[in-house]
Amino acid sequence: MEIKVVRNILEANDRIASQNRGLFIEKGIYVLNLMGSPGAGKTSLLERTLEHLKERKRIAVIEGDIETSRDAERIARFNIPTVQINTGGACHLDGNMVRGSLAELSLDQVDLLIVENVGNLVCPAEFQIGENDKAMILSVAEGDDKPLKYPLMFQVSSVLLLNKVDLIPYLDFDMERFRADALKVNPKLQIMTVSCKTGEGLDAWFRWIEGQLA
Amino acid sequence: MEIKVVRNILEANDRIASQNRGLFIEKGIYVLNLMGSPGAGKTSLLERTLEHLKERKRIAVIEGDIETSRDAERIARFNIPTVQINTGGACHLDGNMVRGSLAELSLDQVDLLIVENVGNLVCPAEFQIGENDKAMILSVAEGDDKPLKYPLMFQVSSVLLLNKVDLIPYLDFDMERFRADALKVNPKLQIMTVSCKTGEGLDAWFRWIEGQLA
Repeated sequence: MEIKVVRNILEANDRIASQNRGLFIEKGIYVLNLMGSPGAGKTSLLERTLEHLKERKRIAVIEGDIETSRDAERIARFNIPTVQINTGGACHLDGNMVRGSLAELSLDQVDLLIVENVGNLVCPAEFQIGENDKAMILSVAEGDDKPLKYPLMFQVSSVLLLNKVDLIPYLDFDMERFRADALKVNPKLQIMTVSCKTGEGLDAWFRWIEGQLA
Repeated sequence: MEIKVVRNILEANDRIASQNRGLFIEKGIYVLNLMGSPGAGKTSLLERTLEHLKERKRIAVIEGDIETSRDAERIARFNIPTVQINTGGACHLDGNMVRGSLAELSLDQVDLLIVENVGNLVCPAEFQIGENDKAMILSVAEGDDKPLKYPLMFQVSSVLLLNKVDLIPYLDFDMERFRADALKVNPKLQIMTVSCKTGEGLDAWFRWIEGQLA
């Protein structure tokens, strides 16, 4: 019974996400769904990406948070169209929330829409929003055992950014084990080791996203 | 409509949690619901707590994970009764899952039951399981902005263990801001700064949990 309710919710969501998808295709917008735990570095990655791309591409951002508009405030300095979605308790964005926010964007003037999901390594992975790609970001401080314990997000993501690699000297993080487990869960996963703090490794990320946009 | 479904699920859960609670009271068991993001240090805290208490108290553990029994394997060396719950995708433990696992424990021989919830800073906070107290653990690497962005877990927890403080020299973590925000969300919250790696600060935690057991 409970399973049926969940399935109905996911099916209804997939329908709405498909409609979003159709709209994004019509407008020629590439949409990235950026997911990860609280504090993994989603907003920092977004800032770095905006710094790199904003002069060359027309970018818009949807910020998903349970409460507050702190992330949107961090993005405000870039002067790009930004919509804040406060989910009011919900632990993920869904297709309907994203659809509801699109009226606030001039979609004809957007090449790239980056959607920063709610900080959560679990639930956002279940909900399509109409994106081209899902990217996940994980902090090395979260530990090397995450791919097998939280497999769904690794499975549905095109790219994994392993962030805060500047902290590795102070952690027990087994990179070989992590890579092997992540690729066991998703053999196609592109893994990039980065530090949004130092900038290390971000070139590969910029190349990837420019490739997707091309 | 969706809100109604969610409310029904939470009400049904609260009923089952109350039944669990009655059973725990009858058996004289203190139950702790340990919550936090993936990689915050839940299992490490559990290991430290077992090292400290296992000779003096009869302890049992319920390990909640989406997949794998890795955490339960880490706990196996303590030779205490441990039940693994694999939620099969669900992002939290609920009262019914905990109830279903209790048959595997000899409750007459337990003083303290520690339930390690699924790694998630959001959803577990919504679901009672019949516990005496909720404790949350947060890694400093998750950032100082979490209390206002993810308020519910801070609101429902009796104790907050701020873990991995040995990493603070390598992070931009504003302890004053963090404390002020956490206490704004929950003025009664007991905040303890610890490192499960170095052992720093754990004495306060041990004193707290022994006080609750007394």
